[in-house]
Amino acid sequence: MKMNKNIHTFIGCDGEYEESKIIIFGAPFDGTTSYRPGTRFASSHIRNESYGIETYSPYLDMDLMDFKIYDGGDLELPFGSPKKVLKIIEDYTEKVIKDNKIPFMIGGEHLVTLGTVKAIAKTYPKLNIIHFDAHADLRDEYLGEELSHATVMRRCWEILGDNRIFQFGIRSGDRKEFLWGKDHVYTNKFDFKGIEILEEKLKDVPVYLTIDLDVLDPSEFPATGTPEAGGVSFKELLSVIYKLSNLNIVGLDIVELSPPYDISGISTALACKLVRELLLQICR
Amino acid sequence: MKMNKNIHTFIGCDGEYEESKIIIFGAPFDGTTSYRPGTRFASSHIRNESYGIETYSPYLDMDLMDFKIYDGGDLELPFGSPKKVLKIIEDYTEKVIKDNKIPFMIGGEHLVTLGTVKAIAKTYPKLNIIHFDAHADLRDEYLGEELSHATVMRRCWEILGDNRIFQFGIRSGDRKEFLWGKDHVYTNKFDFKGIEILEEKLKDVPVYLTIDLDVLDPSEFPATGTPEAGGVSFKELLSVIYKLSNLNIVGLDIVELSPPYDISGISTALACKLVRELLLQICR
Amino acid sequence: MKMNKNIHTFIGCDGEYEESKIIIFGAPFDGTTSYRPGTRFASSHIRNESYGIETYSPYLDMDLMDFKIYDGGDLELPFGSPKKVLKIIEDYTEKVIKDNKIPFMIGGEHLVTLGTVKAIAKTYPKLNIIHFDAHADLRDEYLGEELSHATVMRRCWEILGDNRIFQFGIRSGDRKEFLWGKDHVYTNKFDFKGIEILEEKLKDVPVYLTIDLDVLDPSEFPATGTPEAGGVSFKELLSVIYKLSNLNIVGLDIVELSPPYDISGISTALACKLVRELLLQICR
Amino acid sequence: MKMNKNIHTFIGCDGEYEESKIIIFGAPFDGTTSYRPGTRFASSHIRNESYGIETYSPYLDMDLMDFKIYDGGDLELPFGSPKKVLKIIEDYTEKVIKDNKIPFMIGGEHLVTLGTVKAIAKTYPKLNIIHFDAHADLRDEYLGEELSHATVMRRCWEILGDNRIFQFGIRSGDRKEFLWGKDHVYTNKFDFKGIEILEEKLKDVPVYLTIDLDVLDPSEFPATGTPEAGGVSFKELLSVIYKLSNLNIVGLDIVELSPPYDISGISTALACKLVRELLLQICR
Amino acid sequence: MKMNKNIHTFIGCDGEYEESKIIIFGAPFDGTTSYRPGTRFASSHIRNESYGIETYSPYLDMDLMDFKIYDGGDLELPFGSPKKVLKIIEDYTEKVIKDNKIPFMIGGEHLVTLGTVKAIAKTYPKLNIIHFDAHADLRDEYLGEELSHATVMRRCWEILGDNRIFQFGIRSGDRKEFLWGKDHVYTNKFDFKGIEILEEKLKDVPVYLTIDLDVLDPSEFPATGTPEAGGVSFKELLSVIYKLSNLNIVGLDIVELSPPYDISGISTALACKLVRELLLQICR
Amino acid sequence: MKMNKNIHTFIGCDGEYEESKIIIFGAPFDGTTSYRPGTRFASSHIRNESYGIETYSPYLDMDLMDFKIYDGGDLELPFGSPKKVLKIIEDYTEKVIKDNKIPFMIGGEHLVTLGTVKAIAKTYPKLNIIHFDAHADLRDEYLGEELSHATVMRRCWEILGDNRIFQFGIRSGDRKEFLWGKDHVYTNKFDFKGIEILEEKLKDVPVYLTIDLDVLDPSEFPATGTPEAGGVSFKELLSVIYKLSNLNIVGLDIVELSPPYDISGISTALACKLVRELLLQICR
Repeated sequence: MKMNKNIHTFIGCDGEYEESKIIIFGAPFDGTTSYRPGTRFASSHIRNESYGIETYSPYLDMDLMDFKIYDGGDLELPFGSPKKVLKIIEDYTEKVIKDNKIPFMIGGEHLVTLGTVKAIAKTYPKLNIIHFDAHADLRDEYLGEELSHATVMRRCWEILGDNRIFQFGIRSGDRKEFLWGKDHVYTNKFDFKGIEILEEKLKDVPVYLTIDLDVLDPSEFPATGTPEAGGVSFKELLSVIYKLSNLNIVGLDIVELSPPYDISGISTALACKLVRELLLQICR
Repeated sequence: MKMNKNIHTFIGCDGEYEESKIIIFGAPFDGTTSYRPGTRFASSHIRNESYGIETYSPYLDMDLMDFKIYDGGDLELPFGSPKKVLKIIEDYTEKVIKDNKIPFMIGGEHLVTLGTVKAIAKTYPKLNIIHFDAHADLRDEYLGEELSHATVMRRCWEILGDNRIFQFGIRSGDRKEFLWGKDHVYTNKFDFKGIEILEEKLKDVPVYLTIDLDVLDPSEFPATGTPEAGGVSFKELLSVIYKLSNLNIVGLDIVELSPPYDISGISTALACKLVRELLLQICR
Repeated sequence: MKMNKNIHTFIGCDGEYEESKIIIFGAPFDGTTSYRPGTRFASSHIRNESYGIETYSPYLDMDLMDFKIYDGGDLELPFGSPKKVLKIIEDYTEKVIKDNKIPFMIGGEHLVTLGTVKAIAKTYPKLNIIHFDAHADLRDEYLGEELSHATVMRRCWEILGDNRIFQFGIRSGDRKEFLWGKDHVYTNKFDFKGIEILEEKLKDVPVYLTIDLDVLDPSEFPATGTPEAGGVSFKELLSVIYKLSNLNIVGLDIVELSPPYDISGISTALACKLVRELLLQICR
Repeated sequence: MKMNKNIHTFIGCDGEYEESKIIIFGAPFDGTTSYRPGTRFASSHIRNESYGIETYSPYLDMDLMDFKIYDGGDLELPFGSPKKVLKIIEDYTEKVIKDNKIPFMIGGEHLVTLGTVKAIAKTYPKLNIIHFDAHADLRDEYLGEELSHATVMRRCWEILGDNRIFQFGIRSGDRKEFLWGKDHVYTNKFDFKGIEILEEKLKDVPVYLTIDLDVLDPSEFPATGTPEAGGVSFKELLSVIYKLSNLNIVGLDIVELSPPYDISGISTALACKLVRELLLQICR
Repeated sequence: MKMNKNIHTFIGCDGEYEESKIIIFGAPFDGTTSYRPGTRFASSHIRNESYGIETYSPYLDMDLMDFKIYDGGDLELPFGSPKKVLKIIEDYTEKVIKDNKIPFMIGGEHLVTLGTVKAIAKTYPKLNIIHFDAHADLRDEYLGEELSHATVMRRCWEILGDNRIFQFGIRSGDRKEFLWGKDHVYTNKFDFKGIEILEEKLKDVPVYLTIDLDVLDPSEFPATGTPEAGGVSFKELLSVIYKLSNLNIVGLDIVELSPPYDISGISTALACKLVRELLLQICR
Repeated sequence: MKMNKNIHTFIGCDGEYEESKIIIFGAPFDGTTSYRPGTRFASSHIRNESYGIETYSPYLDMDLMDFKIYDGGDLELPFGSPKKVLKIIEDYTEKVIKDNKIPFMIGGEHLVTLGTVKAIAKTYPKLNIIHFDAHADLRDEYLGEELSHATVMRRCWEILGDNRIFQFGIRSGDRKEFLWGKDHVYTNKFDFKGIEILEEKLKDVPVYLTIDLDVLDPSEFPATGTPEAGGVSFKELLSVIYKLSNLNIVGLDIVELSPPYDISGISTALACKLVRELLLQICR
């Protein structure tokens, strides 16, 4: 009988750091959330509930058990200072990138994406972002703050420049965001129409994929801070992800699951399955 | 620093009464609800939660901030006497109609529609009703009562007469309702098929639009008294509403949101967005 | 294998009507509830959950299995007409009383008590009422209505006259209620202090016991329409009930459990145990 | 006034055993559930909530009131011993089958299906099974146990043999299940594609229909032990059921509703409606 | 019929600013909450639910209707910057204090108290604080941040100096807090023992009363960020408040109600009643 | 930056096995639960939520950080076979006992106690049990099963013999249990009266302490399978535990937390604090 301290990872992801290609970590921060907070609990909740799904995917006919994936747990993040939070995320991501691995961050609110993007853009200056979301997140400031879940893609644009961000599923924002966006980012409202262009456009560049889970319809994914009716379905999201299989994804995240609003548990269960499919897709 | 008493309206609807074309008010009554009560809390709940949505609609490229809309709060309604309740609604609506404005009532249970229809039919004797609902609401009496959520469209018919009520989405009722309905109202079961006929049929007449939110599928709108599987989607509902843009809508309501059953909050969030789209659609 | 239709009673209460001394029935009505409705579901919910308790009481060392008790299920009550509801309750109670049995009604809101009291007072004109409640319920009218949960003890007083109602635990009401009450009923605010006087005062008269469960502290009994902090404990309530053992109780009820607010289930579990102790206490 | 003990059946199903063609009974067992338990409460919960739907189906234009259906309530099942549980189910089913009636079991977890199948296969050795589910349930053992919700179809196969089980909607399992299944059962992953073949294949044989409700998408049916995103819709399920109208269904069940996770109530409401449609479909 | 925009205040508190002695306002901020967020919704929730209580207090035999009290609604506070939040609170409070009125703030998390205390200490340099709480809140920094709910009383001490803060009910903290506290503040652990000393000690000085509602036992007040078993009861809290009637209270607050965790509603109902008693106590 | 796999223990309990005196482990089994299941999730839930409490106890002025405690995580337990489950627990406990350490098991349902007691009684044949519980658990069999949460203390008695089990707080059971108990175990009904006798009676013997958390009142601890009104308070429980400080406790457990019913989270928070106090009490 071996007596080891309790190790707790996403199901099937108990590889050692050195041997793993993909590095999972949690970013439990929701300090700028303006409506319903709670996403700070998402990464640990996903880890817990992942034992309710299988490691095998009947979609891809692949199994997490056939790969080495590392789950480093959650970063320790302070509350009250978005700047410090982003620095911690950036430093961690930089280490992962330098070790030639793929960071897979589980938020938290969407602002955390700024930390990973900053780190990755240093090594990959040609980085492009695929952005699935219900919200444009293109405000220049929000309630007087520059660092906010509602400004995160604007901040990313400041790093990357024009025509590097490709948004899909957007169905909420203020008028100015949409106007500004027309000149600086590619935005497809409401759904994934036109997603095929990415195969061509992003053929030879490094890609970061950020999935704000509220891109999904609230019927399938109710547990998010700002549910927006009229979203895409899990089936649509899956089929789009499989379509991106030829891209060079160097980092990714899923954000905005808010467990306190997931009384039935279906949102977390969906997120777990999505994590599995994303992991396997990248391992392909 | 101005020290004003706290004013609380639907987001973006803080116009004065005199300057506003649309008049929002709540009718917090659920006294005849036979299954799960709670719709009495809907109007104040929608007002609260409306601050979670934007005033701008990316669907219509319009913004509530560009219009004057008045929100008069909730009517004070007694419990235990449907008659008195309907009289209060009728009087309020009459004032609004006489001032040449459009009443937008937020229920409450469906019976409250009888109050507005009664008032409006006095000024507009040619009134027709578009009725979206899971239930036919055509019973002559329910558990011995003539005034009931389950009889409301029958009572409206008594005011308007044959072929004035157009029902869509109906998927529950007793056999007699459906039989009676065949001779007196237009009923399309299950969905919005055939909705195009309204453009022709209602071209030159005043129209009242009553949306029982349980017409939506319970997956997207769980928080209602009697959820009925197999409903329409929010996307379908939206696209139908946009199709009605040429009609002369002189009054409207949404009813049957029951907040105590909206633990995840997605039903109220959907209702808020629907209110916004309806308001903008009428402002067009 | 006997193939009988499914019979569903409070645990241990499957006696036949004729052989039983106590007659349980439900009064699923909450039509005048002014705040949070839902008590209409209490009686059937209590029946369901009663299978989570034992039939044996370690408090009294007695067992429901040793007695014959009949559970007639729920009355069929219409919504929207308090008058009709009260008539149905009155008729049922009258039959029970005439058959020389003790009616045990499970509400529903508190107004239903008026139905049983009316019926019982015909046979027992000297009827007195013991009333445990957080609310005085002594208003003359409420929002314009004479028949309301907030007026029920005033209506009972009209039947019985002065000094026949003994209230305990009262901690909410408007000023007028308390003022009026001083001249017409006995009221002990907040707790059970002075309950001993009942043994003397009610020695030779028939007694009706009505327990509004919101007399209990919301910590122990959260699932009620209007929770009032600062209530009595279950232990206090039990010990008071045992003290009433010498009285001639000719009818009783418990009211105001609202199952939709009982997510944890502790309110219903408490109510079930209370029903058991009341039944055994009367059987003593 | 007749004083009968409270009878409690699924709405419209209060026929006597002898006169009824269909026999409803509950199997409240979830002892091998490996993730979220609670299905033990499904059958009584469905019975309660069935009073929220109508007896009339606008889909089929038929009414439960026109048929004799018997509801025998729930079997008494011990916890901790799957074997004894299955024996009790088997015995009950055998009686029903011998009386030339159709058993309609409401689970409980999926293991209970083994009890009915065992009993029916004795009388109908040519029995085939139509199996709607998110999970293959084809494991040979699960956590060391042979009797488990995760092995139930494997155990059924041991009774029936190859090519007798037709699975649809399967979207979760381990790799071995799918591999083994290829040689022994018909499996259609994800949806109902190809369901038409059943009309031909099962033309002349007795059929058992087992519906694990988690075949439905969690958005429409959240309250199940292991929600699996990407399921079929209620509308799809209904239309498939109507397609099976020519088959000789000699028994059926629905399993895996877990009421503790049905806070909004939409899962139970859907299940009630499904029971109604299944009953009417068989009565056709 | 007067057509005014919907005004929404705490029940019975619709006085004008100029005529009112007490000024209620909400501080909807929870940006440094380290465990379960949600207190941002408390003030608006309390306002809504206050209509479930009476304006009359049977404890004090006083009625809110007999006094002029003003409710200014919620301050508009940004997320992500505690400093800006505190400045807005400070400015508002300063205006109230200069107008010779008593500010009654409804949080929000406990950090907001620093804003009011800062403003009040300018006018009342001899200010003392009575502090009811489960937590000492005396850390010098928390996760690297100086502005935090866990440091708020330390920051207040920096303004006021030694022996000016009197804590009661404290039952959680780290060792260093308790050690530091011994030399600088008065701390009574677990309950209100010794509260009588305040009458003497605070006889001639201005007093600020801050009530972190988690001082209450979680059984009576479950809906708070960090529930701490073993707290005081509502009855104890009330009786202590009445004892403070001779003190010169120049400002007060209640903080840390977290509505998303108040499914049963008992926490908010208690908070409403507490607000009423506090208001009446000050009006005495 | 060290890259270690995510380790997850009860807060402050990350000692290595060899250096630790106390060994925490979880027993996630609820297979014989007869009413509301869910305790299988307790141990992992307690581990998660423990980060909401402090490591320092103001009651004992001690800190978990000053001791070495090991948390081995959860045992892997099959469903459907209580025997196998008990064997796994027994084996694990035996290892711990042989290594001269104190096992601290977190259930699961109460049956798991049989596994530890069996193992410990081998090494300590003079073992006595202190048993806090709402239920006697003395049935000889339950629904035909000998291994059940309702029979566990009877099974323990078979191992230990007469007058070795000391029960407190018992307030539910069938008559036979109480009768049988009189001759074989010490039972104090309802509360902790007489607990002082243990100091004398158990002075020189090894003691196992088993705390069924439903001994607590449901107001403070709602999230348990069978809530029993009229229980003890957390304060009472704590003070009793401190009184046992001179006993030779060789093993202990807490059981019957059911997280799915802990929507507000107060039950788990209380359990975490209780675990801390128990750990520190033993470390004294």
